[in-house]
Amino acid sequence: MKWLTGTTTEVLAALNDTVQLAQEDNQQVEEQVRQIIQQVIKDGDQALKTYSKKFDHVELQDLSISKEAIDLGFQRVEKEVITALEAAKENIISYHKKQKQYDFMDMEKSGVLRGQLVLPLARVGVYVPGGTAAYPSSVLMNVLPAKIAGVQEVIMVTPPSAEGISDVILAAAKIAGVDQIFQIGGAQGIAALAYGTESVPKVDKIVGPGNIYVATAKKQVFGMVGIDMIAGPSEIGILADEAANPTYIAADLLSQAEHDTLARVILVTDSVELAKQVEQEIYLQLETLPRKEIAEKAIQNHGMIIIASSLEAMFTIMNEIAPEHLEVQLVDAISYLHEIKNAGSIFLGEYASEPVGDYFSGTNHVLPTSGTAKFYSPLGVYDFVKYSQVTYYTKEALREAKDAIALLARKEGLEAHARAVECRFE
Amino acid sequence: MKWLTGTTTEVLAALNDTVQLAQEDNQQVEEQVRQIIQQVIKDGDQALKTYSKKFDHVELQDLSISKEAIDLGFQRVEKEVITALEAAKENIISYHKKQKQYDFMDMEKSGVLRGQLVLPLARVGVYVPGGTAAYPSSVLMNVLPAKIAGVQEVIMVTPPSAEGISDVILAAAKIAGVDQIFQIGGAQGIAALAYGTESVPKVDKIVGPGNIYVATAKKQVFGMVGIDMIAGPSEIGILADEAANPTYIAADLLSQAEHDTLARVILVTDSVELAKQVEQEIYLQLETLPRKEIAEKAIQNHGMIIIASSLEAMFTIMNEIAPEHLEVQLVDAISYLHEIKNAGSIFLGEYASEPVGDYFSGTNHVLPTSGTAKFYSPLGVYDFVKYSQVTYYTKEALREAKDAIALLARKEGLEAHARAVECRFE
Repeated sequence: MKWLTGTTTEVLAALNDTVQLAQEDNQQVEEQVRQIIQQVIKDGDQALKTYSKKFDHVELQDLSISKEAIDLGFQRVEKEVITALEAAKENIISYHKKQKQYDFMDMEKSGVLRGQLVLPLARVGVYVPGGTAAYPSSVLMNVLPAKIAGVQEVIMVTPPSAEGISDVILAAAKIAGVDQIFQIGGAQGIAALAYGTESVPKVDKIVGPGNIYVATAKKQVFGMVGIDMIAGPSEIGILADEAANPTYIAADLLSQAEHDTLARVILVTDSVELAKQVEQEIYLQLETLPRKEIAEKAIQNHGMIIIASSLEAMFTIMNEIAPEHLEVQLVDAISYLHEIKNAGSIFLGEYASEPVGDYFSGTNHVLPTSGTAKFYSPLGVYDFVKYSQVTYYTKEALREAKDAIALLARKEGLEAHARAVECRFE
Repeated sequence: MKWLTGTTTEVLAALNDTVQLAQEDNQQVEEQVRQIIQQVIKDGDQALKTYSKKFDHVELQDLSISKEAIDLGFQRVEKEVITALEAAKENIISYHKKQKQYDFMDMEKSGVLRGQLVLPLARVGVYVPGGTAAYPSSVLMNVLPAKIAGVQEVIMVTPPSAEGISDVILAAAKIAGVDQIFQIGGAQGIAALAYGTESVPKVDKIVGPGNIYVATAKKQVFGMVGIDMIAGPSEIGILADEAANPTYIAADLLSQAEHDTLARVILVTDSVELAKQVEQEIYLQLETLPRKEIAEKAIQNHGMIIIASSLEAMFTIMNEIAPEHLEVQLVDAISYLHEIKNAGSIFLGEYASEPVGDYFSGTNHVLPTSGTAKFYSPLGVYDFVKYSQVTYYTKEALREAKDAIALLARKEGLEAHARAVECRFE
């Protein structure tokens, strides 16, 4: 692991250097994706089938997966897994329900009514990666908030494979209440959702993680449909003092490291002693991990131990990192909540181990990465609604406002705006 | 104006054909913008000055505008204009305050605490166009919601000009509480905000309208910083019945048409008689408009009258159009609010003329265009905050959850996730 020490300014400067690389364009991928999207617009279902053959080596008769096939997949999954998914679902619902927002209407001024409606999106697409990155937990996390928001149709797309879609993914889709599943992967899956084809209905917004082709396609259709954030590699930041347990910290850092060789794991502490123990523990625990190779690369290339000079410095540094997951393993952790400015999901105390949030607590695990917690939020019910403003004026209320409106309109050179109001009093 | 009649299906199909063209890439502009951004990253302030000379024909000593210059600009503006802007500000604040959201924390389960923090973005950039499109009202609309959200620093950029920045723009910036103004336009202005330079601080999010270079630059820096929606040409849709006043409707349609030759103005009605009167009125009123040439082009190329067969068909069609501004000029307009699914800002009744929202009522005038009201919202306080999740578990609560967590983690092949939880009980 890389060690960083020094003043807060020095540490922040050093950190900045390590992060810059993330933002690279890949013009070749961009061009390829652009062509795929154009092809799907042009040839619809036929293009989707051609790409499935080319990229996934599967010849599809039918793009959609039947209700029967979904039920069969569900039935093949072990009962305990279904029970655990159902329990997770219940927690996700009870948390996300609290995010629901309501219309308001005000009548502060005589004759004027102003308000805001909260309206669900009509149809949403969820991209679910295939292969080894097939995570049923992510299906719940992406679909349930949409359902709570009131979205009427949730369309899932996922890459086809010769063995068929994994049973547990089908089970999670059924549990979450997905309305329709299509076996389409990559950029062509995103294109189908954004533009619609003979069998795939056009959606209003696309969410869900994917590889570089999926991410690039989402960026290209952005504006044509809504998209969630572009997800980068997973991250965890841990704030710990000398009283923290190095075994727990090492285990939590490794739980992120095993995701991806690019995963970023960062410990910020004011205790050199603790830092040393954590590092030792990491290499000890690494030995017996099935995904040792991945985790080890992540730790070596993107693992960082930062020694800060004070508690204040620890928070300043961590707020600059703005990690996707933040664990606060400090004595009396909850008392520091106010110091945290930027983090996707915050875990307080030594028993709020980050995987609790991945699988069970009910908070969302689709979170802003690569420092974007400075301006992005976890996926939530708010991602599946949009607002409409409402205005009503009586004639008398308009009479009172009309001179100010006409004055400002003319100041901006927009005479027709002024006249639209004035003609009501001629 | 183009007339459309027929069944709802026929009308929707015809509409679809007219809208498709909007989504074109302009690869030349994209490449140019990419180079400008790279140059600003590399050369900072020097690049900004070079581009000012090249594009705006202004040689700048200082990129920032001094507090004294802002005050002087403010003082030169007519007192009535200041008063009108102050009144608009008051209404904007009283409306947007209602959008404020608050933290929540739940303790539904024993030993478990889950919550959501609402945190303001730290620093926001606002792009304000120069030249003839310099709208002080837009300065208020972009800046005030950020201030209400609790954003500490609002940085404004606007193109330089030989005559200096317009007084009324400076006055609006002062009234809205902008913290710093830089005279930088175009893609280079967006690049400066996204990456920071010696004098321009890097921001977390960029909002505000601009030309194709600005819009393209915003799309390219998206992900590096947050951005608001990409705005297209202005739009108005009006629903009217035979009782509606054709003079008012024509005036309101023209108030959008005068913005831009690309502005889209659409009347949907079940009364052919009314439609004919509106069309006559439009050409009558056009004659004396200072921006006749612009408005006339918009009406000819993007003006549409749709005759629907029923009230239900009127709403179906308008929801598919999803207009930026929607006027409901129906008898008892408010009773139809529930039928509206997609619209940025809704104006009810014959006295809620759309310019009321542009200048005075306090609802925002930065709105989703080109049908994106299906998934985007008006600019609001919610655009300047982000959420953080909070989780706390006691040891006992974790003990109860641990088997489900470990089971799901292992099902996904993520052993280190399972162990992170289990090691707390060894």
